[in-house]
Amino acid sequence: MSQVFNFSAGPAMMPEAVLAQAQQELLNWQNQGTSVMEVSHRGKYFMELAAQSVQDLRQLYGVPDNYEILFMQGGARGQFAAIPMNLLGEKGKALYLTSGHWSATAAKEARNFAEIDEINIVDDNYKITRLDFSDIASQYDYVHYCPNETISGVEIFDVPNVGDAVLVADMSSNILARQIDISQFGMIYAGAQKNLGPAGITIAIIRKDLIGKARKSTPSIWDYAVQSKADSMINTPPTFAWYLCALVFKHMLNEGGLREYEKRNAIKAQTLYDYIDSSALFSNVVAKENRSTMNVTFVTGNPELDAKFVAEATAAGLHALKGHKVLGGMRASIYNAMPLAGVEALIAFMKKFETENI
Amino acid sequence: MSQVFNFSAGPAMMPEAVLAQAQQELLNWQNQGTSVMEVSHRGKYFMELAAQSVQDLRQLYGVPDNYEILFMQGGARGQFAAIPMNLLGEKGKALYLTSGHWSATAAKEARNFAEIDEINIVDDNYKITRLDFSDIASQYDYVHYCPNETISGVEIFDVPNVGDAVLVADMSSNILARQIDISQFGMIYAGAQKNLGPAGITIAIIRKDLIGKARKSTPSIWDYAVQSKADSMINTPPTFAWYLCALVFKHMLNEGGLREYEKRNAIKAQTLYDYIDSSALFSNVVAKENRSTMNVTFVTGNPELDAKFVAEATAAGLHALKGHKVLGGMRASIYNAMPLAGVEALIAFMKKFETENI
Repeated sequence: MSQVFNFSAGPAMMPEAVLAQAQQELLNWQNQGTSVMEVSHRGKYFMELAAQSVQDLRQLYGVPDNYEILFMQGGARGQFAAIPMNLLGEKGKALYLTSGHWSATAAKEARNFAEIDEINIVDDNYKITRLDFSDIASQYDYVHYCPNETISGVEIFDVPNVGDAVLVADMSSNILARQIDISQFGMIYAGAQKNLGPAGITIAIIRKDLIGKARKSTPSIWDYAVQSKADSMINTPPTFAWYLCALVFKHMLNEGGLREYEKRNAIKAQTLYDYIDSSALFSNVVAKENRSTMNVTFVTGNPELDAKFVAEATAAGLHALKGHKVLGGMRASIYNAMPLAGVEALIAFMKKFETENI
Repeated sequence: MSQVFNFSAGPAMMPEAVLAQAQQELLNWQNQGTSVMEVSHRGKYFMELAAQSVQDLRQLYGVPDNYEILFMQGGARGQFAAIPMNLLGEKGKALYLTSGHWSATAAKEARNFAEIDEINIVDDNYKITRLDFSDIASQYDYVHYCPNETISGVEIFDVPNVGDAVLVADMSSNILARQIDISQFGMIYAGAQKNLGPAGITIAIIRKDLIGKARKSTPSIWDYAVQSKADSMINTPPTFAWYLCALVFKHMLNEGGLREYEKRNAIKAQTLYDYIDSSALFSNVVAKENRSTMNVTFVTGNPELDAKFVAEATAAGLHALKGHKVLGGMRASIYNAMPLAGVEALIAFMKKFETENI
């Protein structure tokens, strides 16, 4: 079949080189005559893989020594519950900054476990209105936000100012997309299925002094102290998903690391937004300074024409461009694994569609 | 390389036919030009896979219509926390029957969420001493037990009598190993990594009238009512693990269903125990009526000789026979995917080792 580009918002495209390696060794990993998914997580080979993956992620993302890296199950939504269980302390409340669907969902879940204050930081033009909370943040055990909202395609490039308070970021859709200063965060977490690997594994990077405060009624698989002590193996981890993440980290290092991915991601997004801005048919409604580099939303303004676009694009090998049902329209998710060629193919198709339908 | 047989206790061997199909279509699933792990769980193809997998499991295990089947994350240990959160009700306490490491671990975790009474039901000879709790069970919201203890190799073949009370079974290591009457249980659950698929997905079969009682502080991904309403997709499920489970169910149906696996499993276990009982070197210490069909433990009585056995067996392609560190000795896990040929190769090797070392 002809070349397919998959713009799925998640589970999303993975590097072809990673999938090819996984395929090649699926029945015989490390020349053991068994699949990586059939061996004990406590065996020599998997323990080596796990340790190497932590080391590679540390190098790739510049994770300081005073941060722990945990691999868990349950997705970001699991962490929506685990975070208040683990991080609430003496102050007894947390501040949630909401900028779209996922940050609001995190706040809603947290309310089942804690007293939550919520501040909306996005206006009707999808523009971030406030990032300085240094005047109020000290009242809270932590401040939570989501730097990239996948549904609306809104990204927050500057880090909120929370003074000395603990900042927690749901980076499910933009982890490892560009270089960041980890030391600005108390905790970063992400479901793997956009930039890291397959669905079913969740990565958390947590400042060590924040670990060890979990309430008694914290499930042991989400107690950061328990998992930290057990090297993320208090129970059987999702070994195959972990293995794929390990291959992705290695692949990214081989490709030139985050500096290279940051450059590629900027070029991909700029190229697509430039075309959309020049188009007489397609438009993006997000404020320019908050346009996501990962999820590019666009509409024709006519829902029937949007549906026609999605159907014809799919037939042309440009998959999963339908926008989230909440917003409609189109969404091209262009995570790390999407090559520039995919964006160029999309633009070529959009141009053709524009000519035919305007 | 020569034929390898993998006796890992979990993650464990998977059917070779399933792995071969996964390998073949890893980069191009359903002729979509993408991997199954790269597509949206809400897309047409994955939704069909999910629905078919539920239907196949229902057929394979004879799951009645008044039971819900859920696919979750977090392993059995996640459920150790989720079960009290979901099933505790008016009575406010639960009874845990302990017969080894895993049932005791479940009770320990549950104590963080509920008042738990615990009764030990195994004696020093690894014999189950009591299965009738009909006199006391009505005091409890549920009674929990583990019908197969993987570390000691102790299996409980009869179902505990709990009268009208709700019986909950951790079947992580013997789900789908033989035909059972699901209607005797309120809930059955299992991590997938022994008999169902890869690590990272957890299956629960729950009587529908027990769903909907979760306390407020239940993480939404483990709220059975929430997941039931969302067809196990309140968040992104571990799609690749789910896909592999779906292939395993289909494979088992094609091989003749549970009647066939029950027969195969009985023959494999009987063949191995018969040899051990006839051996002058190896012995199994579990009471005959409670010997596990899934995890066969054995010792020489000499830890140095045990270590030599494990090393030489590994070199001969018989992998992962080292017993759990708690008990030492050897353990051959012979789940559904282990063919009789693997058991026969192990026995042949044991005989040779016995001749050379007695």
